[in-house]
Amino acid sequence: MEDKSRFVIAVYVENKFGVLSRVTSMFTRRGFNIDSLTVGMTETPEYSRITITMSGDGYARDQMINQLRKLFNVRKVEYIEDTRALKRELMLVKVKNDPENHQRLLSALDIFKAEIVDFSVEALSIEVTGTSEKLDAFIEMVRELGIVELCRTGVVALQKGSSSMLTEPDEM
Amino acid sequence: MEDKSRFVIAVYVENKFGVLSRVTSMFTRRGFNIDSLTVGMTETPEYSRITITMSGDGYARDQMINQLRKLFNVRKVEYIEDTRALKRELMLVKVKNDPENHQRLLSALDIFKAEIVDFSVEALSIEVTGTSEKLDAFIEMVRELGIVELCRTGVVALQKGSSSMLTEPDEM
Repeated sequence: MEDKSRFVIAVYVENKFGVLSRVTSMFTRRGFNIDSLTVGMTETPEYSRITITMSGDGYARDQMINQLRKLFNVRKVEYIEDTRALKRELMLVKVKNDPENHQRLLSALDIFKAEIVDFSVEALSIEVTGTSEKLDAFIEMVRELGIVELCRTGVVALQKGSSSMLTEPDEM
Repeated sequence: MEDKSRFVIAVYVENKFGVLSRVTSMFTRRGFNIDSLTVGMTETPEYSRITITMSGDGYARDQMINQLRKLFNVRKVEYIEDTRALKRELMLVKVKNDPENHQRLLSALDIFKAEIVDFSVEALSIEVTGTSEKLDAFIEMVRELGIVELCRTGVVALQKGSSSMLTEPDEM
């Protein structure tokens, strides 16, 4: 039996009304919980790309992909294997602006190649990008400085190498 | 009469089953089209934060916020005014690796503070972050180099300054 693990599914959908809701409802009906979801524009104006990360075994994953392929306005569905995935996430995090902690904050920014993007007397907002694991580690580093607020985009992913998902034949 | 414009709504939801699907279905039922949507973790393990960008007038926006506030497992809904918003998006874009274009590509990377994150003989993958307008401009700059594939996270936003959305009283 295969272990449960987190995986990434990329879905090209036509920019038609209600397609996002059809996709998320399908996950709910099937009893799957989504870890993160992003929807954004693509190289082709008529399509958006939905990237979903979720946990489950290989059987569940394949069922999900098959169900998604049957949905109206869904053009292409692909499982992006972890070893071939280029995954990135962006986070904005607002921490307390306490001069006593500035040296520690500057070190964290340096190590994580993070950047201060908004300043006030009471708080500083930081932008940081990378894998989800990197963002988790950054949160742990700045937690004791006092996190006021944070938001994460969720994961986007491309396959490494030179292939394009839209022009590749369906796998499985 | 107010003009139609693009705006950002941030929604704190409990990490409960089906809440994302309830939120997206509400937009569909009301006939609103979502421009971008992200769901990610927050500073509080029991909540996720959904960030939605959409177009509409002020009346539509206020109706939408009121409807969202009535949904089950929705803890907090806030309109993030454009003048007070710190907005960011991340994009991965794969372009053809053609030595004749390297100089032009390097200039674009320099100007946009973008970074090559994957290499192959035939293609290069680039990470770039910023406002949606900045990402649009980057796409225009690299379009003639040959875009193989691209994906965008959609927008996340925090309010500038030192406030925290969860601890503020409801506006409107």
